[in-house]
Amino acid sequence: MSFRTIEWRDNKVIMIDQTRLPAEEVYNEYTDFQGVAQAIRGMVVRGAPAIGIAAAMGVALGAREIIADSFDTFYRQLENVCDVIGRTRPTAVNLFWGLERMKRVALQHKELDLNSIRELLKAEAISIEAEDLAICKEIGRHGAALVKEGASILTHCNAGGLATAGYGTALGVIRGAHEAGKGIRVFADETRPWLQGARLTAWELMKDSIPVTLISDNMAGWLMRTGQIDFCVVGADRIAANGDTANKIGTYSVAVLAKENRIPFYVAAPISTLDLKLANGDLIPIEERASEEVTKIKGIQIAPEGVKVRNPAFDVTPARYITGIITEKGVVRGDYERELKALVGL
Amino acid sequence: MSFRTIEWRDNKVIMIDQTRLPAEEVYNEYTDFQGVAQAIRGMVVRGAPAIGIAAAMGVALGAREIIADSFDTFYRQLENVCDVIGRTRPTAVNLFWGLERMKRVALQHKELDLNSIRELLKAEAISIEAEDLAICKEIGRHGAALVKEGASILTHCNAGGLATAGYGTALGVIRGAHEAGKGIRVFADETRPWLQGARLTAWELMKDSIPVTLISDNMAGWLMRTGQIDFCVVGADRIAANGDTANKIGTYSVAVLAKENRIPFYVAAPISTLDLKLANGDLIPIEERASEEVTKIKGIQIAPEGVKVRNPAFDVTPARYITGIITEKGVVRGDYERELKALVGL
Repeated sequence: MSFRTIEWRDNKVIMIDQTRLPAEEVYNEYTDFQGVAQAIRGMVVRGAPAIGIAAAMGVALGAREIIADSFDTFYRQLENVCDVIGRTRPTAVNLFWGLERMKRVALQHKELDLNSIRELLKAEAISIEAEDLAICKEIGRHGAALVKEGASILTHCNAGGLATAGYGTALGVIRGAHEAGKGIRVFADETRPWLQGARLTAWELMKDSIPVTLISDNMAGWLMRTGQIDFCVVGADRIAANGDTANKIGTYSVAVLAKENRIPFYVAAPISTLDLKLANGDLIPIEERASEEVTKIKGIQIAPEGVKVRNPAFDVTPARYITGIITEKGVVRGDYERELKALVGL
Repeated sequence: MSFRTIEWRDNKVIMIDQTRLPAEEVYNEYTDFQGVAQAIRGMVVRGAPAIGIAAAMGVALGAREIIADSFDTFYRQLENVCDVIGRTRPTAVNLFWGLERMKRVALQHKELDLNSIRELLKAEAISIEAEDLAICKEIGRHGAALVKEGASILTHCNAGGLATAGYGTALGVIRGAHEAGKGIRVFADETRPWLQGARLTAWELMKDSIPVTLISDNMAGWLMRTGQIDFCVVGADRIAANGDTANKIGTYSVAVLAKENRIPFYVAAPISTLDLKLANGDLIPIEERASEEVTKIKGIQIAPEGVKVRNPAFDVTPARYITGIITEKGVVRGDYERELKALVGL
């Protein structure tokens, strides 16, 4: 990878500013948890696994800011830090998974002095990042095995290096297939309104010299119908117990169109994206974002002033449209209810 | 209607500049056929029926520019004028229908003096515009009968007053239902890359106080899945003998998603959009436009410099996804091959 999505360095959190790509490659530094929360809300960092990492690093920063003379006082303030970070974006479960993991580390070491706990929290955040990179490579390895020689692969949004510690989930599968010499090429949906595909996926694939063609979202169906797409792979923000998958708005449409045209449609995601407490996708909260994301592009008004807008940031793809879910532990298909439980050892 | 799409006035063709809406309501004047051809190519005027009218008015302007001393010389030059205009945009058949109609008028009156022919051509172009307005109102009347009280109607692109002499085809159905007091509301797909929905449909529905909500194209499927859309209606650029319909890119996806969610999907178009010489939609030429339409918005680069792009301007929706085709002579459904022939009296 020729860029770094998020990194802990010298007690600061460094993130590539994804709001400014591809025009500018700028790295922002954060020294407090409020800054990290703002960065998540404002999508300086985005993508479910990357949000999980950012949340954990935000907690580690917050732990350094807390002034306390007992574990209980420390932990109450740590919970406040987690609440602030938890309120930034509701859909990606990795955010809450990251926060829970950090709280658990603190609780498990309550007998230690606070500075040791602060160091353990920092180490945990850094391991979450390192694990994520390893997980993405495993996802890539499992996924690449499903891709045929010379395949044209459609992806939606950015489930890439920029959405993870690096390598990516859906783009991990693509990188895996590319590295295996399969001679694949990629169609990237531009992914309105935030243009993650045009701005981020196209950028990172070009950086890695993986052949990519940009299309607007509404072209994907027609390319499928005319035999130009062989394989679809997307990421996930939350996967319910029955396999229903929340991901970037438009994913549901890609899945329906893939099924209609008998094209395999895969979800690639780490196990931290599973939310087996939720029976099905209807229970996943869907974030609705500001109307300006639709009416303005780079600050320029493209629609009539005052027009009413809907802007759900995610949708839910029912499990029946999903050919398989590619995780670091292998590919799950068929009876998702049973298979997902088995995957996590329940 | 509170605006005029295209008009012949004082031997000039006046068009509202659709490249500048909704920010500015500017009317351009054209005094020669080359200017009209440019306006069609550059999408100052767009929408299949409006292109047909513009083509006819362009020919009428061209006829005034021709210097000739015999009908044969005049007609050869008129054919050149038609060729220039005919090369602007390949998909909408109304363009060629308009040109053919103008050539026929000239041929039918070859015995008259050239100035009389020029006047007849002007009169024909003006009648094409007037007829189109009447046709759209009939389409609106037939279509409105299909719309239930309080329906949420999805439309794609702009098949509105701006795509016709006024009133519109798909938006004619919407206007018809609105005027019949059905309390409908509209979801407008923004329609990347050219944003006809965001820029034109939202604008003209707001002007007429018809409730409209703007969404990005990839949200339509999710709104259907969550029960927020009751009815879909779109326009057409060319309809083959079997009912296969070319329309703005993304229409095919809307149709597939509507079928999957058991929502009626109608095409609204004048009979001039039929191309019964073509057996099916595979034979319809699909215009591919410049990549800058995808990589830039209002001149601002939104994708990496040098990224490869596909930009088909249209797609073809197979007839099996179309609940019915609403024309000025009534609604056709079922066996399109037979019914469309019957409609035109073949």
